[in-house]
Amino acid sequence: MRAFVTGGAGFIGSHVVDRLLADGATVTIYDNLSTGFREFLDDARLRPGFTLIEGDLLDTERLKRALPGHDVVFHFAANADVRFGLDQPRQDLEQNTIGTFNVLDALRSAEVRRIVFSSTGSVYGEPHVFPTPETAPFPIQTSLYGASKVAAEGLITAHCEGFGFQAWIFRFVSILGERYTHGHVFDFVKALLADPHHLPILGDGRQRKSYLHVGDCVEAILTALAGADGRVNVFNLGTEEYCTVDDSAGWICEHLGVKPERQYSGGRRGWIGDSPFIFLDCSRIQTLGWKPKLSIRDGILRTVDFLMSHRWLLERAARR
Amino acid sequence: MRAFVTGGAGFIGSHVVDRLLADGATVTIYDNLSTGFREFLDDARLRPGFTLIEGDLLDTERLKRALPGHDVVFHFAANADVRFGLDQPRQDLEQNTIGTFNVLDALRSAEVRRIVFSSTGSVYGEPHVFPTPETAPFPIQTSLYGASKVAAEGLITAHCEGFGFQAWIFRFVSILGERYTHGHVFDFVKALLADPHHLPILGDGRQRKSYLHVGDCVEAILTALAGADGRVNVFNLGTEEYCTVDDSAGWICEHLGVKPERQYSGGRRGWIGDSPFIFLDCSRIQTLGWKPKLSIRDGILRTVDFLMSHRWLLERAARR
Repeated sequence: MRAFVTGGAGFIGSHVVDRLLADGATVTIYDNLSTGFREFLDDARLRPGFTLIEGDLLDTERLKRALPGHDVVFHFAANADVRFGLDQPRQDLEQNTIGTFNVLDALRSAEVRRIVFSSTGSVYGEPHVFPTPETAPFPIQTSLYGASKVAAEGLITAHCEGFGFQAWIFRFVSILGERYTHGHVFDFVKALLADPHHLPILGDGRQRKSYLHVGDCVEAILTALAGADGRVNVFNLGTEEYCTVDDSAGWICEHLGVKPERQYSGGRRGWIGDSPFIFLDCSRIQTLGWKPKLSIRDGILRTVDFLMSHRWLLERAARR
Repeated sequence: MRAFVTGGAGFIGSHVVDRLLADGATVTIYDNLSTGFREFLDDARLRPGFTLIEGDLLDTERLKRALPGHDVVFHFAANADVRFGLDQPRQDLEQNTIGTFNVLDALRSAEVRRIVFSSTGSVYGEPHVFPTPETAPFPIQTSLYGASKVAAEGLITAHCEGFGFQAWIFRFVSILGERYTHGHVFDFVKALLADPHHLPILGDGRQRKSYLHVGDCVEAILTALAGADGRVNVFNLGTEEYCTVDDSAGWICEHLGVKPERQYSGGRRGWIGDSPFIFLDCSRIQTLGWKPKLSIRDGILRTVDFLMSHRWLLERAARR
């Protein structure tokens, strides 16, 4: 396999890169290093078949020059934080929607026809069916992030119909684990290191959320790529459980041996556009034989351990 | 009402403009005249309260200067032809998705918070439920046009959630009637005038489609705007019937007194990304008291009469 990984220096992308290289693929990484880290590629760069191209998805010429000669693109480059869409509304449009269009356009020029895409459970908006299946009722988008990902999904599947592309689209719950760079575990660990006596929590703490460890995520992606051969293959990716933000806070505090006062910002949602309940029906991917190995709790604690031993990330990855 | 109508010189937009002016509104039209016609505004420009601004949605500065002082935007400017997405993939992205983002951004700056949007039944891709309700299963996009409209819907509803906008979104079947400038009736009339002995038909003629007369469409939009007050109001718009392309060809030929040989291009679809069956469940808008006045057949024949008496359009509107 000659893989092209956009966002390959990012959290999930770099794990995909490591796995593909370990499996013997040659891998070209295309990343603008805006939220990715060269350090995430320290293992990868020692392998044969590794190439890093520093480039942005909006640089269509560079993208078009880089793509020929590959046989599949893993398109993971994105503005991946759902929370800040309202501060910079154009960012999701540019990096996620237009960026995806540019990738598709370059694929077409290069006659590369297979694309793996990291979408999100946020495309379900605030669903009314739980666990939420891939065929949930036509959702109303509630975040600019979700809107940008549903737009990207549409561009990809229209290219499947119109230009004979084949796509594997994954709607993730929140992914965590080694190299995790944003989200509530990041915020909690950082806050507790600064002040172990107080823990600020967005919302009322009762938001119900699902999390998946990045190792399980990568395994699921490769399982689907090997086992699903439709023109358009859409899979939810998550665990068969959910937890509350309060549960997670409790596990993290116990693990760190702290007993802070919890300071809630209040409200059912952590931020505008936040979905108070995320729980995806993952039976479709499970029919291919995949099952997550780590529970939500285990995934969260491994993430805490990683952050505690990589404290430089807590500074450098803080909203750049 | 101080209305701002993007695409107000176009087919549906100009009818909305006429109706709003007749109802006593002041109306600013923002149109790049790429597919609209000054002639469609011949009645409108005689009324007080009429302003035409020639501008493109990609000209964000002009848009931002034009918007303040209005209280609702009817956003109808779009690349409206579903068939040519594959020839110019970037056009739907720019005019429909990015264009809509620019409108929303300008609305935000101008503190205008109400938007009426012309979406399309094409957002359902190839549905499996008929008649197709607004809550149909999460669709897979099959055309770049549908993808661009679902992207625009997502941007609009995310702005409702994030910035307190209120939206009325209409998913149209094919609209026809006076000032109709593209679609199968246009193609059939033009072909029969050139050669009454042969009629080229895209697909196998058995595609089942729904059509709505533009007068009924405008009435439905104003009914919903007056009667639905949710944050996000999504309505299918169509009739309670459908016909085949062959039915339509028969009505048109009989009306014109011709008996051409039908030449089918073949296949279940008229073009790549075409949906072979479009039939929308319109019970939601009907609960507000709206019902179409014209049957599909009557709508088609009035369109034929209009085109026969405005033959300049058959030349000038042919794919510009």
